[in-house]
Amino acid sequence: MYTVHLQASKAYDILIGPGLVKEAGSHISRIFNPCKAAVITDSNVYPLYADCVCRSLEENGFAYDTYAFPAGEQSKNLSTLSDILEFMAESQLTRSDIVVALGGGVTGDMAGFAAAVYARGIPFVQIPTTLLAAVDSSVGGKTAVDLKAGKNLAGAFHQPSLVLTDTDVIAALSDQLLSEGAAEVIKYGVLQDKELFSWMCSDAWKEKLPEIILRSVEIKRMMVMEDEFDTGLRKMLNLGHTFGHAIEKCADFSLSHGFGVAIGMAIAAGAAGKMDVCKEIIRANINCGLPSSTAFSPDILANAALTDKKRSGATVDLILPEEIGRCNIVKTPVEQLVTLFEKGLNTVKELI
Amino acid sequence: MYTVHLQASKAYDILIGPGLVKEAGSHISRIFNPCKAAVITDSNVYPLYADCVCRSLEENGFAYDTYAFPAGEQSKNLSTLSDILEFMAESQLTRSDIVVALGGGVTGDMAGFAAAVYARGIPFVQIPTTLLAAVDSSVGGKTAVDLKAGKNLAGAFHQPSLVLTDTDVIAALSDQLLSEGAAEVIKYGVLQDKELFSWMCSDAWKEKLPEIILRSVEIKRMMVMEDEFDTGLRKMLNLGHTFGHAIEKCADFSLSHGFGVAIGMAIAAGAAGKMDVCKEIIRANINCGLPSSTAFSPDILANAALTDKKRSGATVDLILPEEIGRCNIVKTPVEQLVTLFEKGLNTVKELI
Repeated sequence: MYTVHLQASKAYDILIGPGLVKEAGSHISRIFNPCKAAVITDSNVYPLYADCVCRSLEENGFAYDTYAFPAGEQSKNLSTLSDILEFMAESQLTRSDIVVALGGGVTGDMAGFAAAVYARGIPFVQIPTTLLAAVDSSVGGKTAVDLKAGKNLAGAFHQPSLVLTDTDVIAALSDQLLSEGAAEVIKYGVLQDKELFSWMCSDAWKEKLPEIILRSVEIKRMMVMEDEFDTGLRKMLNLGHTFGHAIEKCADFSLSHGFGVAIGMAIAAGAAGKMDVCKEIIRANINCGLPSSTAFSPDILANAALTDKKRSGATVDLILPEEIGRCNIVKTPVEQLVTLFEKGLNTVKELI
Repeated sequence: MYTVHLQASKAYDILIGPGLVKEAGSHISRIFNPCKAAVITDSNVYPLYADCVCRSLEENGFAYDTYAFPAGEQSKNLSTLSDILEFMAESQLTRSDIVVALGGGVTGDMAGFAAAVYARGIPFVQIPTTLLAAVDSSVGGKTAVDLKAGKNLAGAFHQPSLVLTDTDVIAALSDQLLSEGAAEVIKYGVLQDKELFSWMCSDAWKEKLPEIILRSVEIKRMMVMEDEFDTGLRKMLNLGHTFGHAIEKCADFSLSHGFGVAIGMAIAAGAAGKMDVCKEIIRANINCGLPSSTAFSPDILANAALTDKKRSGATVDLILPEEIGRCNIVKTPVEQLVTLFEKGLNTVKELI
């Protein structure tokens, strides 16, 4: 088992290893006295792991109540948040109790946000059950729900008290879910880990999941510790996201986040005029079952990107690759977005 | 004009004086560069002061959009919050923009919460238009909405960047609204200001509004600076609130918050066995047009108090007066609540 220690406004451990779901209660009992745990999960994960987590909580002296919302990004809104909060209130949860977020990114983001605002903040534990959640959303304390106007537009910074990433659970995922997570891993490689990137270009990447998760989490950890509240370095993690979010939005979120990010990274490299980097990203994307292009026009995509919350006034901070392992933050006037989408998409289409 | 400087996780000024609504833009321009202001208000305050504030913002180089929700506590929920957040997104508000909360406690709490979670937090300015908001909710960064299960159960700590309390606006309030605010002022007196308390027992209290607001804000400021996140000393501010919230809840919130607090303080003094203090609180309540008793039974009230978020596990922190100007935090097993409600109510009924 690997342990990564993160020291932000709250210090906490990220445990990565086999069998952690079964031992959840035991690990949680090391940092919390017996109390009530509100286990928040979705309708897909509930039948797979909820029982196992709850049994382990009970064996370690915790009371629990479980709430499962309908799986899918379309649940990630204020209406589901409201249902979760009312459930927590009906469970008479207090500031001495905890939330356990058991699931993928949607569950972690939303249960984390519920924990952030219930009684103005109670602690929570992340148990990510997708590769994407394991390497990205479960670490760093960004919680959110979507508004009609855009993804993640309402949220809070609320660090978890513990992250338990069970590598048995990740290894059992479908190819589709592994691909979605792989996009974020490729992102960490492009940002600052050539070796990690090279793993994602090899046939054997699925055999190295624990190491891949560890390396990804270590990079994320460093960025979160440098810039917890996303005003500087942490923006780097948005590589592929401004372009990617726009694509997801245009596709009415029928395209998964990981796929959006994969395409977004390729476009970013193309927009930066880095043919070689763009080529390598496309290669990694193909190896991991990810797309690199989209049929939406630059006009439509640029317009969709305008309501992205990362926009600060009349400019947008774009992350553009310099080489594999090194990227820059480039403050870009919003009116240049359409040109960059065009340049990026043209380069990608030339190369695939 | 009085200026109170508060230094918490954010440092900010609370200005108290005449004409501040007309000069809002000028004061705001001293701390923010020209940007877009989302002015959030309610249907009562909108026709009175929104134009005035917006004109002043415009004169000082700010763009603005205004949103008015239906006035009243019944609007203080996640559904209205959702509407406000969607309005902010449609206005394309970014992290460089601001929210202006123009109104009473409901507006300040809800607009502050919207500012706390929009794009994971943007700055906001409080312009309280009720005495209650001026002396209590506009200062200290507690923001919230109600859940079906209880008042203020979902919220965030989010300090304003500036508070503008226009004493002309407060002086123009109805007797009912002044009475509601007076309850919180009496509370500060009972907590730690004998002189302030004595003012609230005199005929002339309405002539001393600027001084009363100043003294109240200074006490609140001290408690917020000592204990921003409400884990210790700040609990003192709950004097009358655990009992009061229970009464409001039983009355299905047809009783105003101030009236609940007034009754709650009298009950607290009675429950503490302090006949003299109870008598004096009743005297102040009567002088300020406030009630001191309720027809609900101790059983029903104790049950309603159980879902109060201040409850931490099996005990509740009650604030019990020792004398006028001095109170104690008393950790009380929840099963004693019914006895305390009984003792408090019996004492009050003996004295009135």
